[in-house]
Amino acid sequence: MEMLKQRILQDGRALSGDVLLVDSFLNNQVDVKLMQAVGEAFARRFANAGVTRVATVESSGIAPAAMTALAMDVPLVILKKSASRILQDDILQTEVFSFTKNAPYQLTLKKRFVQPGDRVLLIDDFLANGEAAFGCIRLLEGAGAGIAGVGAVIAKAFQPGMRKLREAGYRVEALAPVKSMAEGKIEFE
Amino acid sequence: MEMLKQRILQDGRALSGDVLLVDSFLNNQVDVKLMQAVGEAFARRFANAGVTRVATVESSGIAPAAMTALAMDVPLVILKKSASRILQDDILQTEVFSFTKNAPYQLTLKKRFVQPGDRVLLIDDFLANGEAAFGCIRLLEGAGAGIAGVGAVIAKAFQPGMRKLREAGYRVEALAPVKSMAEGKIEFE
Repeated sequence: MEMLKQRILQDGRALSGDVLLVDSFLNNQVDVKLMQAVGEAFARRFANAGVTRVATVESSGIAPAAMTALAMDVPLVILKKSASRILQDDILQTEVFSFTKNAPYQLTLKKRFVQPGDRVLLIDDFLANGEAAFGCIRLLEGAGAGIAGVGAVIAKAFQPGMRKLREAGYRVEALAPVKSMAEGKIEFE
Repeated sequence: MEMLKQRILQDGRALSGDVLLVDSFLNNQVDVKLMQAVGEAFARRFANAGVTRVATVESSGIAPAAMTALAMDVPLVILKKSASRILQDDILQTEVFSFTKNAPYQLTLKKRFVQPGDRVLLIDDFLANGEAAFGCIRLLEGAGAGIAGVGAVIAKAFQPGMRKLREAGYRVEALAPVKSMAEGKIEFE
């Protein structure tokens, strides 16, 4: 997605070989028009995938995932990084390791929001090691849903997540697949 | 907002005198078309307020706030409930007590995303005690911004937040102001 790549080159900051800061348009401040275009791009790429629901993990995935769900006219399901204090029944949970925070967290899904027969498109802001994506897939498949695909706004293609997901048979679309990064320098595939 | 009130009556669940569960269309599963209508409703109500930015707190506020920012054609700024591990400079922080979780958390704002002269519209899913709203206002005003208003998708008007914000001089708009709740029964103002 050319508009997104140009924005990353213009406003993203490669802090090291694996930290890409995009907090001025994706994480902390959100360019909602760009997110709308991101949502429309995912909707085009997965137009024939039979998607019945979009899912994402709180919180940076919510804006692009909401715009994708809007463009596809399906509900959005948000997986939480901690269990709710209200109503503990009906919850599926799995441990995911966050490399960003260097700590595990409990990823949770209220299973009544996905049904057997659903085909879920998983959208997230970043795909790196694939830990969060595989955690989501475990929960969604555990609830009986099928995975229509995984859409990453930005994929660090030099980290193993994208390859591992594809090896496991999942379709992955990255709007901005980063081939390599060094301080101050970003190259796309 | 009539469509929202009808949806709350249809799908919301009053679990007690103060817990309103709206996880099937607002918190966990999100009806993005409804959120688009919510965003347009806020945009109409604050059309003449000179809004330059929408702000919200992660994560349940993000979907309605993103749709509001889209309808108003301004950026969205997301305040986080914990400090980022990457780049600790440039951060304003304040302690907020969560009655839902019965514990305090650190609300943080990257101050470069609001400027003196900005007029910020604060959007959140719920307004109850006003703790989160006043925390956001402290940080946004601390960064030099003005507050154009506070928009709550649902306000528990029987709790003190809305009154306290208005007494402090802030404009508050609630799309669904709940006058009273009891198990199984919801009344709007």
